[in-house]
Amino acid sequence: NFAKLDIEREKRTGFPEVVFGEGKTAEQMVIILKRLQQYAKRAMATRVDEQKAATILKDLPQFTYHPIARTLYWKHESEPDVLYGGYVAVVCAGTSDLSVAEEAAITAESMGCEVKRVYDVGVAGIHRLFDQLPLIQGASSIVVVAGMEGALGSVLGGLVTCPVIAVPTSVGYGANFNGLSALLSMLNSCAPGISTVNIDNGFGGGYNAALITSL
Amino acid sequence: NFAKLDIEREKRTGFPEVVFGEGKTAEQMVIILKRLQQYAKRAMATRVDEQKAATILKDLPQFTYHPIARTLYWKHESEPDVLYGGYVAVVCAGTSDLSVAEEAAITAESMGCEVKRVYDVGVAGIHRLFDQLPLIQGASSIVVVAGMEGALGSVLGGLVTCPVIAVPTSVGYGANFNGLSALLSMLNSCAPGISTVNIDNGFGGGYNAALITSL
Amino acid sequence: NFAKLDIEREKRTGFPEVVFGEGKTAEQMVIILKRLQQYAKRAMATRVDEQKAATILKDLPQFTYHPIARTLYWKHESEPDVLYGGYVAVVCAGTSDLSVAEEAAITAESMGCEVKRVYDVGVAGIHRLFDQLPLIQGASSIVVVAGMEGALGSVLGGLVTCPVIAVPTSVGYGANFNGLSALLSMLNSCAPGISTVNIDNGFGGGYNAALITSL
Amino acid sequence: NFAKLDIEREKRTGFPEVVFGEGKTAEQMVIILKRLQQYAKRAMATRVDEQKAATILKDLPQFTYHPIARTLYWKHESEPDVLYGGYVAVVCAGTSDLSVAEEAAITAESMGCEVKRVYDVGVAGIHRLFDQLPLIQGASSIVVVAGMEGALGSVLGGLVTCPVIAVPTSVGYGANFNGLSALLSMLNSCAPGISTVNIDNGFGGGYNAALITSL
Amino acid sequence: NFAKLDIEREKRTGFPEVVFGEGKTAEQMVIILKRLQQYAKRAMATRVDEQKAATILKDLPQFTYHPIARTLYWKHESEPDVLYGGYVAVVCAGTSDLSVAEEAAITAESMGCEVKRVYDVGVAGIHRLFDQLPLIQGASSIVVVAGMEGALGSVLGGLVTCPVIAVPTSVGYGANFNGLSALLSMLNSCAPGISTVNIDNGFGGGYNAALITSL
Amino acid sequence: NFAKLDIEREKRTGFPEVVFGEGKTAEQMVIILKRLQQYAKRAMATRVDEQKAATILKDLPQFTYHPIARTLYWKHESEPDVLYGGYVAVVCAGTSDLSVAEEAAITAESMGCEVKRVYDVGVAGIHRLFDQLPLIQGASSIVVVAGMEGALGSVLGGLVTCPVIAVPTSVGYGANFNGLSALLSMLNSCAPGISTVNIDNGFGGGYNAALITSL
Amino acid sequence: NFAKLDIEREKRTGFPEVVFGEGKTAEQMVIILKRLQQYAKRAMATRVDEQKAATILKDLPQFTYHPIARTLYWKHESEPDVLYGGYVAVVCAGTSDLSVAEEAAITAESMGCEVKRVYDVGVAGIHRLFDQLPLIQGASSIVVVAGMEGALGSVLGGLVTCPVIAVPTSVGYGANFNGLSALLSMLNSCAPGISTVNIDNGFGGGYNAALITSL
Amino acid sequence: NFAKLDIEREKRTGFPEVVFGEGKTAEQMVIILKRLQQYAKRAMATRVDEQKAATILKDLPQFTYHPIARTLYWKHESEPDVLYGGYVAVVCAGTSDLSVAEEAAITAESMGCEVKRVYDVGVAGIHRLFDQLPLIQGASSIVVVAGMEGALGSVLGGLVTCPVIAVPTSVGYGANFNGLSALLSMLNSCAPGISTVNIDNGFGGGYNAALITSL
Ligand SMILES: Nc1ncnc2c1ncn2[C@@H]1O[C@H](COP(=O)(O)O)[C@@H](O)[C@H]1O
Ligand SMILES: Nc1ncnc2c1ncn2[C@@H]1O[C@H](COP(=O)(O)O)[C@@H](O)[C@H]1O
Ligand SMILES: Nc1ncnc2c1ncn2[C@@H]1O[C@H](COP(=O)(O)O)[C@@H](O)[C@H]1O
Ligand SMILES: Nc1ncnc2c1ncn2[C@@H]1O[C@H](COP(=O)(O)O)[C@@H](O)[C@H]1O
Ligand SMILES: [Mg+2]
Ligand SMILES: [Mg+2]
Ligand SMILES: [Mg+2]
Ligand SMILES: [Mg+2]
Ligand SMILES: [Mg+2]
Ligand SMILES: [Mg+2]
Ligand SMILES: [Mg+2]
Ligand SMILES: [Mg+2]
Repeated sequence: NFAKLDIEREKRTGFPEVVFGEGKTAEQMVIILKRLQQYAKRAMATRVDEQKAATILKDLPQFTYHPIARTLYWKHESEPDVLYGGYVAVVCAGTSDLSVAEEAAITAESMGCEVKRVYDVGVAGIHRLFDQLPLIQGASSIVVVAGMEGALGSVLGGLVTCPVIAVPTSVGYGANFNGLSALLSMLNSCAPGISTVNIDNGFGGGYNAALITSL
Repeated sequence: NFAKLDIEREKRTGFPEVVFGEGKTAEQMVIILKRLQQYAKRAMATRVDEQKAATILKDLPQFTYHPIARTLYWKHESEPDVLYGGYVAVVCAGTSDLSVAEEAAITAESMGCEVKRVYDVGVAGIHRLFDQLPLIQGASSIVVVAGMEGALGSVLGGLVTCPVIAVPTSVGYGANFNGLSALLSMLNSCAPGISTVNIDNGFGGGYNAALITSL
Repeated sequence: NFAKLDIEREKRTGFPEVVFGEGKTAEQMVIILKRLQQYAKRAMATRVDEQKAATILKDLPQFTYHPIARTLYWKHESEPDVLYGGYVAVVCAGTSDLSVAEEAAITAESMGCEVKRVYDVGVAGIHRLFDQLPLIQGASSIVVVAGMEGALGSVLGGLVTCPVIAVPTSVGYGANFNGLSALLSMLNSCAPGISTVNIDNGFGGGYNAALITSL
Repeated sequence: NFAKLDIEREKRTGFPEVVFGEGKTAEQMVIILKRLQQYAKRAMATRVDEQKAATILKDLPQFTYHPIARTLYWKHESEPDVLYGGYVAVVCAGTSDLSVAEEAAITAESMGCEVKRVYDVGVAGIHRLFDQLPLIQGASSIVVVAGMEGALGSVLGGLVTCPVIAVPTSVGYGANFNGLSALLSMLNSCAPGISTVNIDNGFGGGYNAALITSL
Repeated sequence: NFAKLDIEREKRTGFPEVVFGEGKTAEQMVIILKRLQQYAKRAMATRVDEQKAATILKDLPQFTYHPIARTLYWKHESEPDVLYGGYVAVVCAGTSDLSVAEEAAITAESMGCEVKRVYDVGVAGIHRLFDQLPLIQGASSIVVVAGMEGALGSVLGGLVTCPVIAVPTSVGYGANFNGLSALLSMLNSCAPGISTVNIDNGFGGGYNAALITSL
Repeated sequence: NFAKLDIEREKRTGFPEVVFGEGKTAEQMVIILKRLQQYAKRAMATRVDEQKAATILKDLPQFTYHPIARTLYWKHESEPDVLYGGYVAVVCAGTSDLSVAEEAAITAESMGCEVKRVYDVGVAGIHRLFDQLPLIQGASSIVVVAGMEGALGSVLGGLVTCPVIAVPTSVGYGANFNGLSALLSMLNSCAPGISTVNIDNGFGGGYNAALITSL
Repeated sequence: NFAKLDIEREKRTGFPEVVFGEGKTAEQMVIILKRLQQYAKRAMATRVDEQKAATILKDLPQFTYHPIARTLYWKHESEPDVLYGGYVAVVCAGTSDLSVAEEAAITAESMGCEVKRVYDVGVAGIHRLFDQLPLIQGASSIVVVAGMEGALGSVLGGLVTCPVIAVPTSVGYGANFNGLSALLSMLNSCAPGISTVNIDNGFGGGYNAALITSL
Repeated sequence: NFAKLDIEREKRTGFPEVVFGEGKTAEQMVIILKRLQQYAKRAMATRVDEQKAATILKDLPQFTYHPIARTLYWKHESEPDVLYGGYVAVVCAGTSDLSVAEEAAITAESMGCEVKRVYDVGVAGIHRLFDQLPLIQGASSIVVVAGMEGALGSVLGGLVTCPVIAVPTSVGYGANFNGLSALLSMLNSCAPGISTVNIDNGFGGGYNAALITSL
């Protein structure tokens, strides 16, 4: 009644519906996730806080909760860990972006991609990025996660050949306006191979990168 | 002096620097484009109005001007038309989005992709989209171009397996706020396989789609 | 002193004044609601949180509190449940929009309309909407409730002949800007038979739909 | 190619597709309007400036151009002027709102409704509104058009029983922000029977009002 | 050190410096208010929450705290209650605006004006305003306090000869954007004798009205 | 038909309706102004550009056009120039604010006040303001006109005993956002005796100041 | 892994990397600060709340926590207190700006500058500023900290010869929009020798001022 | 009357008042500039379009007009070209930023500084910046001019020891919102030694840099 699971999503788009955890009770989520398990071999929920996760895990102990990424994930035992060759690079600017970066990384891993994490390489100390460039340039697709001025997106975009998915974060304060500065920065990137998802949407970043790597 | 051509861009990112035509004089552009021709086999400029294009073409008659897309393009005769298999689908919501859609299509073609155009299939008459679904679903990557409420992005995103690049346009008036409504709509899409570029940035849409198709 | 009840509202507009529960103490509300009961046969309050409702219900046990919709409602026993033929369809995009959708549904029911609920049929899985289309198309008026990109409004608007009242919700995060994305989306709908009320204003959505159904 | 006419729109929603005149060339519009005439008995285009209209009328002299409303309209001779009983009241606040008010009035008339115009009755001289109240209160539905602070919507909403469609206009300057003040005002109306359409969207106002009157 | 009291403010502007209570500790406020008492015969602080007030009152029991207005006030016993003829009318739209209206009323009283309160006369039931019109029209100056669409300002402005100070409140939700709708509404009033102060600035409203009444 | 003159405005508010010149044709304005002359002894129109004024003056040569203030004004020969004692001081920050300052000054003069102009005394050279302080402090009411950061309002507000009406102007560029910076500055003034009117609303500034001076 | 310390920052820019305390756990901060101590003789962290500071100080008792400025600071015993001649003046408008002003002062002191504090000299009582002018004019560089309308920046900018760094604060409410009013005010200053940092960024203000003083 | 020249500005701040050319007539400017020449040895005006400049130059042929920077400048023959050691580096991201960069450069030169121009070194091709680093790092102060995402500010800020003044430009389109993206980017820079001036304010950038270099 309160939920009409999109059970054919996997058939249409390649991955089952992912449950948006905000604004749902733990009870609603248990019902939805159980139904998902009947129709799919992988199931995921995002933006689940620690308390709600604990309640859900009592009913659904097969799920794994990742506290930094705030995700719940389950995969049928018959499903392999890695489904595709190549790897997704998840690059973030500062330690404070960790939670969003992990949401991206866990999402891509949940979809069957290998992930390499390159964290805390923001442009204020740009040599840190150059040190990691070979690792980043070897990726099939890149997620770049940055708050504040979000400049990492443009800098990286000019250095790689594969598509870059930019995830602005709300890290910062004042004229950051909860992530607006990084969002606008990324949308206005003068390096062309970048496209952007919503502020703090690590899930969307990881999903798009995995989609590209899976091609 | 006024321009330091990024002549190694092609080596680093796979495609030579594209010239942003706004805020440059025809004279500056001729100098820049001539230098590009020395270093690369393809050269492109965007956002060039008809008058500026006419002046440039006097000096550079080998370039082709596309008045709807407002692009200038040149390719060395040794370069093939199509470099990659598969095709990019460029889908737009209304006739008024044509200029941005063509900028995307021409960009992807300039980069060596085949392009299929599916125009004027906005959600107010959604059956028009469903009629074209097989064509769209066969693409390697999709550019979706829409103004006003930009709903086409989400609808399409839930119907296809390949990555979707969404281009909001400034088509509309009033609370459209020059494309803000479509931009926010696309960034907040509840269909996950979508990422977004700047308002009216057909170039960025075509570029990212071509990048994915070239993988 | 602090409240001048608009006791002729029902005569002028067809329905008694509805009390806005935010920013009022439980004590103020009891006094206002009691006065309303003297002049009208139906009385309603919106945006009443659970704690305030509990205090009020001690004094006014004849009222019914609906915790999801956060409404208080009372109707004189002489009043029938349903006053008008036809029905209002309340359609929402996701499970997280439930609270606003229920506020709309309860409002329309309080005003004497029959209501059919069609929940969780967002455009990312558009077939869910098509499955319910006959039910929706049979309505006298429709309330469509959606957050994030709010695309459901436009899609629905192109499929029905009766008026659609769109209610954007604040469901989402980041560039959703507390409902701005859905609001702008709905205001810019290219499907013409839609009009919009305030973000999270389920009450306004239900009220307008009931008004139309009562014609 | 550039336009996929939504020829079944009339069947689905009760009125044929209306052409949005901005961003289309006169040539494109002639082709679209001619096709519309083959499938429907009424055809309309909005936001057509005087020069474009003149060019179109050379090819399509059966159309009528309304310069204040900036609309083009044609109706097959077999079609009656008035299709429905009752009438739509179009009420506007100031003389400067005339163009939007006329767009609403012409739209409702084109859809077969009788229209009564009540112009220049803004709240700064509120007795002007009260003088016209009987005429307004007799309507089946009301379009209220106002710029600047848009207060007319709320005032009227508290005085009538039928649904009110509010159209904010961009009339004003400074902190009017091109109609934002009137838009927000109308969306936040404390009178409940009001719903809002886009800034300057007289077409949407007239369309919704006609839809309600046609019930 | 942390505070340089503006002890000549009264000489320059007619009233001593008023302490802004937010962002100051109770300790800081006690020191400032004590110093004020040495230089002036009246002292006031605004935006003081209940807990901070309690701490301050322990040290400064001669002050009066008004919990609805959130003000602290002290006047030397030699000072008369009323200093000026005429009266300030404080008019508010809804019960939820009470706190801001009281801040205005208390401020004007503290400055030596008589105040008449006319509360809950919003435009949705406009006859309530007309019932009170003689009282309002007899005032020397008027403070009008309203949230949501803030239409009361314009309506009143067209009905009176004395200056009107408009105070927008943050009462409302959604596209009210914390008072922006009422603020813009009041700034764009088409009735000319209105000027506006900050959102929720009852203090400023009362101050300006008292200033005018004191002329 | 297109205009319902508010002929009792003078009786209700003390001054006849003033015509808003934007968005009206010269023909409409001539009709309106002629009617005004039948009912009132003073008539005024604002925001009239030079060309429109010229057309109007052909029909209404008794009117005076002030090109800097962009106002039209007429007064019956029986009316005295000055109706009230005291004077209004109109103070502006820079030479570029002249047009708005003159609109304020002309308005106050039209309403029968004496006006003293103190121009180009912005805070970047604050001694210029101090030089003129005696003249300003002698006024019955003050209009302060400033663009860019609008700081003049607060500075002045702390130096005078009479009410200050602040008029933000759109003078500036970039993050001035067409006057938003000066508007917000004035609304947030920490000097309490200031109230604000719309951006570039010299008319409102002069009107309110004249109202106060006429008390 | 989660942090790649920019250990060469001091070499490149003259001061070691400063840790942004928001969004990091106490554990992460201890690890980062310990590493900093190995590579540098001074170490600083900003925006550290009292509770987090307490946890960190257990592990790193050599650090000093400044509760008003919310900073952690450590300096090797071999390092002198003052490294440069001249002094930085930190000027703030009101007592409520203290926390940001102290962040600026502590930062400049941590970098080896002498600092003179001039607090609570806002423009509403401008003589307070003039009293302190000799002290301010003797500085090598000035940080000006102000909320609400932020006018102090422009006033000061017109009175001094050295560079002024303006720090807008979020002190205020309503149309202050969390510091936007002060930010825009400072960016639009008509006094030319001012540049601005982020809202509440006392750190940036102090850093830039110290940089200039160290020249 | 319309202008009170701030003739002591030079004494107070080190440089005579600079005339803001927008919103002034050529006649007003001639009068102001002539007066400036009587009191100062250098005189400058900004934002003067070509046509206005031509008119002014007829009266004041000793002035030099710089069409790209849109500045007028005059210096007494007794004044030396260069007054200070060291140099200002003006660095810009793209050719389209030229006009703002030149305004900065000409301003600094007018104030007696040597200037080195480093143009078109945006982050999309970051090696171009590294090639010029020695030149940039040798400067006493740096102006960085960039539009679109404005990332150049942060990147540069992390590579130099001297203060950086960031000038966001309105170059770009769409979600650039006339320079907002670059402005927010620069204000949120995670590299600390940067402060920002208004969008397109090359004058402010050059002025602050020259001030620092003159120390
Ligand atoms: N003035 C208008 N405002 C908003 N939508 C409109 C207007 N006129 C026509 N439309 C809608 O715009 C769509 C046509 O888009 P297009 O394909 O660009 O002509 C149709 O679905 C119409 O319902
Ligand atoms: N973190 C997320 N951000 C954006 N969309 C999401 C997120 N997690 C899940 N979704 C999408 O939200 C939709 C589910 O909405 P609901 O019915 O409310 O669960 C699905 O279509 C998902 O693709
Ligand atoms: N391009 C500019 N941007 C910002 N402020 C400027 C500019 N040019 C001049 N100014 C300042 O504007 C003020 C002059 O204002 P006005 O009296 O209108 O000429 C002076 O204080 C200058 O410092
Ligand atoms: N509620 C209020 N809203 C706006 N300004 C206020 C308010 N209360 C006091 N003020 C002003 O704030 C200034 C005091 O600032 P502070 O030094 O922080 O106490 C005084 O100039 C008062 O006029
Ligand atoms: Mg770090
Ligand atoms: Mg179409
Ligand atoms: Mg769902
Ligand atoms: Mg009128
Ligand atoms: Mg009430
Ligand atoms: Mg000046
Ligand atoms: Mg103070
Ligand atoms: Mg370039």
